[in-house]
Amino acid sequence: MSTPSLPQGTRDFGPEKMARRSFIFDTIKGVFKKFGFQPLETPTMENLSVLTGKYGDEGDKLIFKVLNTGDYLKQVTPEELITGDAKKILPKISEKALRYDLTVPFARYVVMNKNEITFPFKRYQIQPVWRADKPQRGRYREFYQCDADVVGTDSLLCEAEIVLMIDEGLSKLGITDFTIKINNRKILAGMAEAAGELGQEGIICVAIDKLDKIGQEAVNNELLAKNINPNAIGVLEAFMNIRGSNSEKLAQLELLLQNSDNGIRGIAELRELFDYISYFNIQNAVIEIDTTLARGLSYYTGTIFEVKVNNVSMGSISGGGRYDNLTGIFGLPNVTGVGFSFGVDRIYDVMESLNLFSNTLEISTQVMIAAFDKPAERYALGVLAKIREKGISSELYPDQSKMKKQMSFADSKGIPYVILIGSDEISTGLLTFKHLATGVQEKLTIEQIIDKLLQNVPNT
Amino acid sequence: MSTPSLPQGTRDFGPEKMARRSFIFDTIKGVFKKFGFQPLETPTMENLSVLTGKYGDEGDKLIFKVLNTGDYLKQVTPEELITGDAKKILPKISEKALRYDLTVPFARYVVMNKNEITFPFKRYQIQPVWRADKPQRGRYREFYQCDADVVGTDSLLCEAEIVLMIDEGLSKLGITDFTIKINNRKILAGMAEAAGELGQEGIICVAIDKLDKIGQEAVNNELLAKNINPNAIGVLEAFMNIRGSNSEKLAQLELLLQNSDNGIRGIAELRELFDYISYFNIQNAVIEIDTTLARGLSYYTGTIFEVKVNNVSMGSISGGGRYDNLTGIFGLPNVTGVGFSFGVDRIYDVMESLNLFSNTLEISTQVMIAAFDKPAERYALGVLAKIREKGISSELYPDQSKMKKQMSFADSKGIPYVILIGSDEISTGLLTFKHLATGVQEKLTIEQIIDKLLQNVPNT
Repeated sequence: MSTPSLPQGTRDFGPEKMARRSFIFDTIKGVFKKFGFQPLETPTMENLSVLTGKYGDEGDKLIFKVLNTGDYLKQVTPEELITGDAKKILPKISEKALRYDLTVPFARYVVMNKNEITFPFKRYQIQPVWRADKPQRGRYREFYQCDADVVGTDSLLCEAEIVLMIDEGLSKLGITDFTIKINNRKILAGMAEAAGELGQEGIICVAIDKLDKIGQEAVNNELLAKNINPNAIGVLEAFMNIRGSNSEKLAQLELLLQNSDNGIRGIAELRELFDYISYFNIQNAVIEIDTTLARGLSYYTGTIFEVKVNNVSMGSISGGGRYDNLTGIFGLPNVTGVGFSFGVDRIYDVMESLNLFSNTLEISTQVMIAAFDKPAERYALGVLAKIREKGISSELYPDQSKMKKQMSFADSKGIPYVILIGSDEISTGLLTFKHLATGVQEKLTIEQIIDKLLQNVPNT
Repeated sequence: MSTPSLPQGTRDFGPEKMARRSFIFDTIKGVFKKFGFQPLETPTMENLSVLTGKYGDEGDKLIFKVLNTGDYLKQVTPEELITGDAKKILPKISEKALRYDLTVPFARYVVMNKNEITFPFKRYQIQPVWRADKPQRGRYREFYQCDADVVGTDSLLCEAEIVLMIDEGLSKLGITDFTIKINNRKILAGMAEAAGELGQEGIICVAIDKLDKIGQEAVNNELLAKNINPNAIGVLEAFMNIRGSNSEKLAQLELLLQNSDNGIRGIAELRELFDYISYFNIQNAVIEIDTTLARGLSYYTGTIFEVKVNNVSMGSISGGGRYDNLTGIFGLPNVTGVGFSFGVDRIYDVMESLNLFSNTLEISTQVMIAAFDKPAERYALGVLAKIREKGISSELYPDQSKMKKQMSFADSKGIPYVILIGSDEISTGLLTFKHLATGVQEKLTIEQIIDKLLQNVPNT
C-alpha cells in the first residue's frame, strides 16, 4: 500500500504549530472582543449561487465546487453529456461550493438575519477559506482568514478603531515595527477627476498600485497603453509624488484636489479619521497616508488600509476598507460598513522569522510522572490524582519502560518537570522532582511539589 | 433577486450560539490539556483515496466529493461520458473529498509523521466533519467532532483516563447525572465463542445492540433470521440478562465465559480498568458495565465506552474504544490505541434543555458609552481610551442617535453597563453610570467606574 499524502496546498498542523497558531488566534480574538466585536461562524459549504459572480471570472474559476451526492449525473441529458462542455454541465452536477472568503458569507448572513440583528453590528469571524490557486511558498489552497467588520454605521470612529485594533493586535503578538498605510477611495476618484479621467479610476488604480514594484516610468507606460490621456499622466504623477508628513500630504492633496468634490470629501474623511485616532495612545504603529495605495477595486468606497511589517520581506499582513453596498449583491441595498482582515499565515511567518514565539507556548503538560515498576505505578496514580485536583496539566507515563525512554519522551514533548517514583520514594514519601532543562533534582513531598508547580504554571 | 439560503443541513452560528459553543469547546479543550493531550488539525479536504473504503459502502456514498478544478471533464473519454455511469466517471472528475470523521485523517497523520512523533502520542482534535446524510432534527451535514486518542501504548491507564476525562468534562459543563457504559469487544467475542458461534460476533453485536430499543424477542428473531443457532440464542440471552452491581456482573461473566480465552482476557481488562479508576475521585459519572453495549463493529478490539445523560431523551453524547490496528489501512501495522469523542451538538442540546448555560456567557462588551452630542462624543473618546487601557471590553456607540436608540442597542447586545455623557457630565467630571438590568444609576468619576467594572468582569 502506498503512503498516503495530503492534497496540494493543504497542511496538517501538529502540536507545535497548533500552539503557535492558537497563540495568534487567541490574541487577535482577545482584541476583537475588547473592542466589542462578536463572533460569527458560517458553514464551509455555501450554495454555488451565493458565491458565483462575486469574485470576478478569475475568482469563479478558483472556487472549489462540491459534487451533488447520489447519482450526480441524473440531471444531465445524454445530449449535454456528449458535448463534454464542463462549464455548461457544472450547474447540473454541483450546487454547493467551499467558502472562498469570509466577506460574502457575512453579507449573506446579514441579509438572512436582518430582522434579528441590531445595527451597528460588529462581528468577527475566524475560519478557513479555500482557493484553487496554484500553491507556492506562502500561498495555500486552505488558509485562515481573521475578519472584523462593522456594518450599519458610517461613523469614522469605526475606521479609527480598526487602526487601534491593528496596533494593539500586532503589538500584543510582539511585532513592533510596522506601518499602517491609509488612503481613501474618494481621493483616488478625485485624482481621476483632477486628471480629467473621472470614471477611469479602475484602470488608474491598478496601474499606480504597482508603483512600488515597477517604478514611475513603467506605471506611466501602462497608463498610456490603457488609453489614459498623456496630459492626465502629468497630473497623476504629481499625486504619486506627494511626500512628507501626514499633514504635509493632506495640504498637498487639498491643493491638487480643490476642484474635485470627491477629493474634498475624501480629504475631510481622512482628517476626521486622524482626529479620532488622536484621542488614543498608539503603541507601535507608524500611521502613514499613502496616495498610491489602491487595494484592488472590488467594493471599497471610502477609507482603505494596508499593513506592512518594516524590515521584513513579506507582503501586507493586514488590510481592509469601507464599502457602501456590501449586501446589495443579495438584494439589501445601502448597508454601509467597514472591515479588515489579519493575514494569519503571513503573521505566523513574520513571527517565526523575528523569533517572537515564546518557548513556553508549547508546554502542554507541566509535569510527567515516571514510575520505576508496577508498585511505583500504583503509588504514582495517587500522586497524579492529587496534582490533577489542583488543575495542573500532568500525565503518568503509561508503560513501565526504561527510565531513559521515559525521560526522553518527556524531553521530546517539552515537559519541563518530571517526578520520579521508585521504592525509595514510596518508603520515605519524598519524591524525586527533576527540572529537565537544568537537570537539577530534589527530594520533596507531594505538597511541596504542587506548590512549586503552581508557581511555575505558564500563562496560557 | 431572491433571498440567499444555506445548504441543507448546515448552520450559521451567530454571537449567542458561538458564545455557548465556545464555552463547550473551551471546557473540553481544558480537560484534554490537563490530561496531557496535544492539539492537531488536519485539512478539510483529503485525497479521495485516503477516505474511500474506510467507512463501508454506505459511508462512501455519504462522503462529499470535490470536483477537480479547471476542465474537470478532460480525463473522461466521450465513450465513458455517454455511458452516464456516475460511479465509473467519479474518479476521473474528483480526486478530493471533505473529511468524514477525525479518525481516518488522524491515522493518515500518524503514518505520514511516524518518524517525528514520540509515542505514546496523545492528540486531541476539534474540527467539523461532513456527511451527506438526510438532515433531520439533531442531525446535520456539517457538525463538529471532539476527539482524543492515545496511540502507541496498550496500557489500560489510557482507558481509565478517558473515563476520568468524560467525568470531568461533563461535570465542568454542569451535566451531573450521566452514565458511562463500558464493555469490551473481547467479552463480546467470548460470548460468541461460548454460544458456539465464534466469528459471528459481527451479526450478534448488531442484534444485541438493539436490545434497549426493540426488546429481547425481536433481538432473538433477528438472530434466528441471521442463521444463528437456536441453541446459541439461549446462551446469548443469559449474557443479555446479566444484572447487578459491576462486581456482580463480573462474577457472572466469569462463570459464563470460563471456557473462552477471549472472554477471560476481556474480563481481566475490565478488572484492571476498574482498578486504575479506583485511584481517582469520580465527580458525577455512574460507571456501569453493560454486556449488551456493542458500538457497531468497525475497528474496535478492546474496551468500548458510551455515555448517556440520564432522564434526558437523547442518544449517547460520547463514546469510543480501543483499536489494535488503526493505521493498518495505510500500511503501518500494529499501532494500538484508544480514543473517544464528545458529541458537541448533542451536548449543546442537552445543556439547553437543562438550562445549563450561564447568562453571562454572552456578554461580549462589558460597558458601552452613550454620548448625547458631538462635544460629548469627543469627551467620550478619552473615557473610552482609559477604560480600554485597563483591558475592559468596551465600545462607544458610533453615532449621535437618540438616547433611547442607544440604550436599546446596549440592551439587545446584552451589555450590562452604560456610561452616559452629556454637558453636565463634562463640566463636573462625574459620569452617569447605569446598570441596565436594575436601572440603578449613579454619578461617578471615571476612576470609580473603572474600579466597579474591574470587580464585575465575568470570568471568560
